Amino acid sequence: MILNKIKNSIQEPRITLVGAGPGDPDLISLKGVKALNTAAVVLYDALVNGALLNHAPEHAIKIFVGSQSDGESFSQDAVNKLMIDYALNYGHVVRLKSGDPFVFAKGFEEINFAESYSIQTEIVPGISSAIGVPGLHKIPMIYGNMSESFWVLSGVNSKGEISSDLKGAAQSKATVVVLMGIERIREIAAIFMAEGKDRLPVAVIENGSAHDEKIVVGVVETIAELVEDHKISSPALLVFGDVVSLHPSFARIRDFYYTLYEG
Amino acid sequence: MILNKIKNSIQEPRITLVGAGPGDPDLISLKGVKALNTAAVVLYDALVNGALLNHAPEHAIKIFVGSQSDGESFSQDAVNKLMIDYALNYGHVVRLKSGDPFVFAKGFEEINFAESYSIQTEIVPGISSAIGVPGLHKIPMIYGNMSESFWVLSGVNSKGEISSDLKGAAQSKATVVVLMGIERIREIAAIFMAEGKDRLPVAVIENGSAHDEKIVVGVVETIAELVEDHKISSPALLVFGDVVSLHPSFARIRDFYYTLYEG
Repeated sequence: MILNKIKNSIQEPRITLVGAGPGDPDLISLKGVKALNTAAVVLYDALVNGALLNHAPEHAIKIFVGSQSDGESFSQDAVNKLMIDYALNYGHVVRLKSGDPFVFAKGFEEINFAESYSIQTEIVPGISSAIGVPGLHKIPMIYGNMSESFWVLSGVNSKGEISSDLKGAAQSKATVVVLMGIERIREIAAIFMAEGKDRLPVAVIENGSAHDEKIVVGVVETIAELVEDHKISSPALLVFGDVVSLHPSFARIRDFYYTLYEG
Repeated sequence: MILNKIKNSIQEPRITLVGAGPGDPDLISLKGVKALNTAAVVLYDALVNGALLNHAPEHAIKIFVGSQSDGESFSQDAVNKLMIDYALNYGHVVRLKSGDPFVFAKGFEEINFAESYSIQTEIVPGISSAIGVPGLHKIPMIYGNMSESFWVLSGVNSKGEISSDLKGAAQSKATVVVLMGIERIREIAAIFMAEGKDRLPVAVIENGSAHDEKIVVGVVETIAELVEDHKISSPALLVFGDVVSLHPSFARIRDFYYTLYEG
């Protein structure tokens, strides 16, 4: 009897990596909610909507671990170790990340680390803002003759350099979605201009799907100015491609260029 | 009194386009579930898990409209018209599509058609299998020096031709995800081989996230044979890229090539 009691009080260590989706807390999956329902500990990132923590039991430990782009946050190493410590001592740890855990979110590194300690892991994918957020603004990734594919990049790579893939993306006919590129928008726009795409439509969306989201729509040659004028800041994503011309605000821009050059 | 009664019985027509996510029914979003909870009519596609219909009220009308790749299904035109008819006569129509409605799913076309009738529309994004399914198999889209971006394509375009974007994708350093390409895998692999990528790792996943999913992992030069041997068929997605080498099954393949050429 006593042995059983001890056994029951020691929870099996396990880690569930959950994608919370973009800002709207109702965009998490049912499976993510179920994982939170049984969490002993939740480790959550800077961009995760706080309302999601209400799905975890009241007594669960909830720890903000920030994001790597934020100077005050935990290092990846520290997050990895916290995850293991809590799993071994408390049982079920939910590692809650915004968007999808495998799109620029080091999900693989964390799962890999946990497995090196033979801790059972599970993955719950999330809605990546790269696709979900343009969709919420009725900008499709693919459309008729406009685009047959889409290419998702980070504006900067892990070394803080502009990604070398951007040149290829600017040359391609794909819809190009750039995450974490807002602070380098001038340089990124210049890469598209070097390919003669000065008039390619662009949308910039800050805090997509959250109540305070903002969107500006323009073309490559003026987008950096528009972003400054509208004080768009991180987190924001950039969508380059003819599909952006399907957004209702683009009609105004088309008329402007028409008046200027062909009118 | 009577007038009020009549007014209340006429529901405001509206259409919610909901992404159901990949096969696992728990991968739908909370927002998608809430939309289904208030549906008067659900129009659903071939790849949607039937369990999701249980979120709709028992008295709701549920109509299977198939998918365009299926000869017996409704045309896009017929689906558009059904959507409008039901919204005008019954109120809230949920248009339920597998994955995300804006990734090769004609979501924009349907929303656009509904708006041309001044019917209120709402979009609920879904987890695209293009990202979520490799993630469930612990294949990240992005990883260290292996990949800084990912490119999602359909194997064939709307005319049934191999997408012309595939050549660029094969030349790029991006992780390349090909949806609806399984039936043309030989031609698609040949495009990568023409770029000297015979040994690039590839994963093929059928029915990702569903209980009967299958995965095979190989390299470009042998993948078509593997797919035949394992009888992998549609729906399946292809992932090309060094990130596939992170999958546990790949160690075996690496050893084989090592023995053959360098041992």
